Amino acid sequence: MSNLTPPNLTGEIEQRRARAQAWFESLQQRICAELERLEDEAPAELYPEPAGRFEMRPWTRETGVGGGIGGYFKGRLFEKACVHTSAATSRFSPEMAATMPGADKDPSYVSASISLIVHPRSPRAPTVHLNTRFLSTAVSWFGGGADLTPMLPEQRSQDADDAVLFHRAMQAACDAFDPEWYGRYKAWCDEYFYLPHRKEPRGVGGIFYDRHDSGDFERDFAFTQAVGEAFLEVYPKIVRHRMDEPWTEEDRQAQLVQRGRYVEFNLLYDRGTTFGLKAGGNIETILSSMPPMVSWP
Amino acid sequence: MSNLTPPNLTGEIEQRRARAQAWFESLQQRICAELERLEDEAPAELYPEPAGRFEMRPWTRETGVGGGIGGYFKGRLFEKACVHTSAATSRFSPEMAATMPGADKDPSYVSASISLIVHPRSPRAPTVHLNTRFLSTAVSWFGGGADLTPMLPEQRSQDADDAVLFHRAMQAACDAFDPEWYGRYKAWCDEYFYLPHRKEPRGVGGIFYDRHDSGDFERDFAFTQAVGEAFLEVYPKIVRHRMDEPWTEEDRQAQLVQRGRYVEFNLLYDRGTTFGLKAGGNIETILSSMPPMVSWP
Repeated sequence: MSNLTPPNLTGEIEQRRARAQAWFESLQQRICAELERLEDEAPAELYPEPAGRFEMRPWTRETGVGGGIGGYFKGRLFEKACVHTSAATSRFSPEMAATMPGADKDPSYVSASISLIVHPRSPRAPTVHLNTRFLSTAVSWFGGGADLTPMLPEQRSQDADDAVLFHRAMQAACDAFDPEWYGRYKAWCDEYFYLPHRKEPRGVGGIFYDRHDSGDFERDFAFTQAVGEAFLEVYPKIVRHRMDEPWTEEDRQAQLVQRGRYVEFNLLYDRGTTFGLKAGGNIETILSSMPPMVSWP
Repeated sequence: MSNLTPPNLTGEIEQRRARAQAWFESLQQRICAELERLEDEAPAELYPEPAGRFEMRPWTRETGVGGGIGGYFKGRLFEKACVHTSAATSRFSPEMAATMPGADKDPSYVSASISLIVHPRSPRAPTVHLNTRFLSTAVSWFGGGADLTPMLPEQRSQDADDAVLFHRAMQAACDAFDPEWYGRYKAWCDEYFYLPHRKEPRGVGGIFYDRHDSGDFERDFAFTQAVGEAFLEVYPKIVRHRMDEPWTEEDRQAQLVQRGRYVEFNLLYDRGTTFGLKAGGNIETILSSMPPMVSWP
């Protein structure tokens, strides 16, 4: 692969990409294992179906070098989930290079990422999203975040139990590095995951960061790892709180409608989704975030 | 209202807007009555629920003069339908004026339109869409069209029964005016209602036209009326063919997935939807096109 390393990307950058990729892939394995553990624990009275298992499908890029591992899940506690990793050594299209720092002279880049969305069957368990990535052109940065989308109105305030737990975990991940990051990245998340046409937030937020480069790769990599660890600790805790709670048909209807807002956000505003689709990305991966059943009554 | 008529829009234009509006509103009444008639005719073995009725909700614009009549329906044969009319004497935002013929010097315009989408409950009955409008800035034109979206794979070819009936009706409406219009407007429809990320058409097409101005208002108005009449004749015929056919759970699943493609098209590509939402249009009206139940399995 070394003969494909572009001139502005040193061996050190490729090494960093490889380390980030290895870490995202190990996180993917741990998250998948934990979601399967939760799936097994779900009470049979509420979830009579057999427990689901992840199906892992590796894929290879058609341009450049790289690919990824798509993790797809259909189950009883988790109606649908996807946990994907990918990595690349490639070149941005001219259109995309124009929007990327450090890509104006040379569109070469390396990347590694993890992204996941979990749609629980129970309307009482929140949907969650995590996406973190390492990207390098002539400059390098991390980006990503995690955010929570409870489905029922009473769970969708900042001081609802699940929101408090989730925010506390994300704050701890940030505060271990810099006391200023959490406030900034929480505000960015609220701004990003917002549906202007409905004047509604997508969920209760979390953190969102991009072009994160403190000048110290090791520190920034450790921060992105801390976000992943915080997610892996807090989301299963929230699901365990909720998995024994029965729900009503009315709750289910509210969930299907709230999922419609999720679809509206992803197709109208989410940069990853709209750009990925228009740039000819892997549809199966990009649209695996869509909820399994949705209603616009 | 005459003191609000903008300098570049003559009394004649306002009269034309009023005639178009009156016609669209009478078409709306006739379509709603016909859909209710079909709803009543639906066989109770397949549709045990009580027959639905349209709920008509008039609304008034917040800027400029005008408003509309929203027609909303939930029923047994038709799981969800909307038939809306609207009319306005107003001014385009600078952003929108830049894209509109004749609005570069003066953003004033008048408009009148009808738009509808019908989502039958049966996967064997096709979804349909119609939208026609009169618009005038310093220049005037008609635009719109009608297209059919069958849900089952075997119905989604150009020579399937419903597609043939629908295309024949649209062709007759065009051919009565100009033998060249049908080929052009059918091709435009195929080009417009296409999902590039899936390399799939939305449905089997129909006709699509915009900035239609042959130089003869009476002729162009008569053409848009003929499109409405053709729709009113052919769609009920198609539904009557299909309403006695039972369907399987597998058909229903295929329908819910196909409806997901409809959502993807409307939120990713449809100009009316994406522009309307981003420009702060009436959400309830714009998103009433969304299918009642959808699946991304």
